[in-house]
Amino acid sequence: MIFPTSTEQISEIHKYCFKNEIGIIPYGQGSGFEGGVINTNVDGRPTVTLDMMKNMTQVLGVHGAPDRYAKVQAGVQRELLNEYIRDTGLWFPIDPGANATIGGMTATSASGTNAVKYGTMKENVINLRAVLPDGTIFDSAGEDRSFIKSSAGYNLTELFTGSEGTLGTISEITVRLHPIESHLIAASCKFPSILQATTAAEQILSLGVPVARLEFLDEIALEAVTDETPDCKAALYFELSSSSEAFLKEQVESINWLCEENDSFGFKSSTSLEERTKIWNARHRAYWSMINKFQYGKTRQGYSTDVCVPISKVGECIIKSKELVKNSKYLNKCGGIIGHIGDGNFHVFFGVDTSDEAEFAELKFLADEIAKLALENNGTITGEHGIGLGKKHLLEKQVGTASYGIMKLIKATIDPKNIMNPGKVF
Amino acid sequence: MIFPTSTEQISEIHKYCFKNEIGIIPYGQGSGFEGGVINTNVDGRPTVTLDMMKNMTQVLGVHGAPDRYAKVQAGVQRELLNEYIRDTGLWFPIDPGANATIGGMTATSASGTNAVKYGTMKENVINLRAVLPDGTIFDSAGEDRSFIKSSAGYNLTELFTGSEGTLGTISEITVRLHPIESHLIAASCKFPSILQATTAAEQILSLGVPVARLEFLDEIALEAVTDETPDCKAALYFELSSSSEAFLKEQVESINWLCEENDSFGFKSSTSLEERTKIWNARHRAYWSMINKFQYGKTRQGYSTDVCVPISKVGECIIKSKELVKNSKYLNKCGGIIGHIGDGNFHVFFGVDTSDEAEFAELKFLADEIAKLALENNGTITGEHGIGLGKKHLLEKQVGTASYGIMKLIKATIDPKNIMNPGKVF
Repeated sequence: MIFPTSTEQISEIHKYCFKNEIGIIPYGQGSGFEGGVINTNVDGRPTVTLDMMKNMTQVLGVHGAPDRYAKVQAGVQRELLNEYIRDTGLWFPIDPGANATIGGMTATSASGTNAVKYGTMKENVINLRAVLPDGTIFDSAGEDRSFIKSSAGYNLTELFTGSEGTLGTISEITVRLHPIESHLIAASCKFPSILQATTAAEQILSLGVPVARLEFLDEIALEAVTDETPDCKAALYFELSSSSEAFLKEQVESINWLCEENDSFGFKSSTSLEERTKIWNARHRAYWSMINKFQYGKTRQGYSTDVCVPISKVGECIIKSKELVKNSKYLNKCGGIIGHIGDGNFHVFFGVDTSDEAEFAELKFLADEIAKLALENNGTITGEHGIGLGKKHLLEKQVGTASYGIMKLIKATIDPKNIMNPGKVF
Repeated sequence: MIFPTSTEQISEIHKYCFKNEIGIIPYGQGSGFEGGVINTNVDGRPTVTLDMMKNMTQVLGVHGAPDRYAKVQAGVQRELLNEYIRDTGLWFPIDPGANATIGGMTATSASGTNAVKYGTMKENVINLRAVLPDGTIFDSAGEDRSFIKSSAGYNLTELFTGSEGTLGTISEITVRLHPIESHLIAASCKFPSILQATTAAEQILSLGVPVARLEFLDEIALEAVTDETPDCKAALYFELSSSSEAFLKEQVESINWLCEENDSFGFKSSTSLEERTKIWNARHRAYWSMINKFQYGKTRQGYSTDVCVPISKVGECIIKSKELVKNSKYLNKCGGIIGHIGDGNFHVFFGVDTSDEAEFAELKFLADEIAKLALENNGTITGEHGIGLGKKHLLEKQVGTASYGIMKLIKATIDPKNIMNPGKVF
């Protein structure tokens, strides 16, 4: 493990590794789900890990309204950035579950609950500085460039966003910031069936209600939070934000109406911070509650699938995923669903005893079946976690042989010695 | 000129051209500003033009709410797509000045007046089918995939969007559609100085008013439209859209207030179609009016610069651009400004007699000076027109030697025989 302090130092490390064919793994917070930072010693080669979170944690610049962007070193965690800019009236809304680094989030093209309104890292990275395998430093959009739009040459920013450390080490990132809206409203309600919940969500999105967050929990997730049998099969959680309170109230009325049309009950909404927190309580606690619950006398680790399908197909895909889990042998009580349903993205969370070969094999089977379901429904095998090690065998199935070939060609061209995060993605 | 009828036919043409090292220029509506489709016979090689607008004009599929996307052949013009989907309650908002083809717009990463609210082609292309130089057909995100977000492998969609035909021929594109908002409001006002207009625009954007369009005209553009000396130095044009009329009225009040704080006058706003058209009349007519006006007894063609800078710098850059034009020898009466100021993007429009060497040289000098100004202000030499032939000499200056090298490496790898739109971008 090396703890670089600057882009220039990363460049020196790269030069040494390039010459000596040593592998390099850029490392952020280590919270990824797909093993993207595991050292697998491909070809038996020595590999170093570049830990960015110790010495690459500076916010290099913040530009307030109307430009609204910040430049940070790769090891800056998203919560730290938001803490740093809290007096500016702006925020950085991309929120994967963990307090991930901006570098790691860029590398995996992360998102989270706010993507419905604010997009993913793809839409929020304006520019990035990275080091190529041979030590060459470059700025994807040019040094210190921060325009809203550009048609100048190939989009290197987007090529490196989501490249999972396989093309170079991202050292500095310029990200878009957004105005904190003056009014927030949270709401939630329950449904007698999954399909009614997802239909309500579809109708709300079809109507064009500008939700900022739209999340789904199934009964297993809800049971994990309360440790009681829930009185419903699914729940939806909403957050809306705007400069206009009147506008928000109109929108919440539309949401309530469409939920009721789908037999919802227990509708709650509030603008106060305390009440909003209470309303979203189950959603906020679902992940850890499930990991705790899924032990059932064994030592089980958390595991999450991550498919994303067109909104119109998310209900059917959730239902079929639940059937797969229900019919499984070892994990039928260990799967629950959290859905960023406003994007068509949902996670089936499992607890799994990785030392139990049969159980672990079943997990892999279920994960592949759920991924297959997404592929059959115009979807993707990963909405926000990336390919890493865990989904390498599925990438070609998703993008096709020709696109897979282009990706491998780009990898071989930019990293001819295969030193960057070797063995990942391909 | 070849008029292909299908992706498969394009593939056959590519195979023949690849084998025989014949250049290929994909051609849409031909409305680009940077000569991106001109046959320059690089290395004296024969070159064919693939005209997509004759036989590749089918809308292949429309998916309504909540999925909201359409798949089209590359030769479909944007107005045709909107006509085709008009009963769905959806629209495709990207609106370059011309009635361009979706293929051409994808190739140049086009935008227009709606980018403030809806983004550019980058944010609206979900997937594309393209043919590599050797005839290989691929789907950038995988066949028939249409998710809202994905972290699966390299972002080939964004690599080909804006690649200006230099990597392959784009034959089919899947684009995002958007709900038509039920309420629209247009507004405009005049300012005694350019800086007051741009300051008002900055403040409106800083406040977070969700404008859909925010356009700027200078006095020369205004004079061209009315053929009278305008009573102001600049004007701003606004359009807002929402499902809530009450919300829009609140927002227009904020706009009016901030404009008045900057000594605006003649503020008009309306929700009716007829009045909205009247309010935007000068903006809609500015381009053609300027081309007409700038003849001054010669035969002058239209030419447009296309820089984009951070919002906070757009006022200063517009003023300095106007000084450059004012101090020029031949073109001082032939430059006027249209700004997509909500994005920091503005065009200085010229009329130029290309047969007059001194005048044409001055145009090139002015265009380069304006581009330089953008580069000195963290900006880009092209917000939406692309590099083509006209800005090849500026690309490396913008992105830096290292990024330029990566772009050329990608070009050389994907198009090793340099048959795709030879001589463009690099």
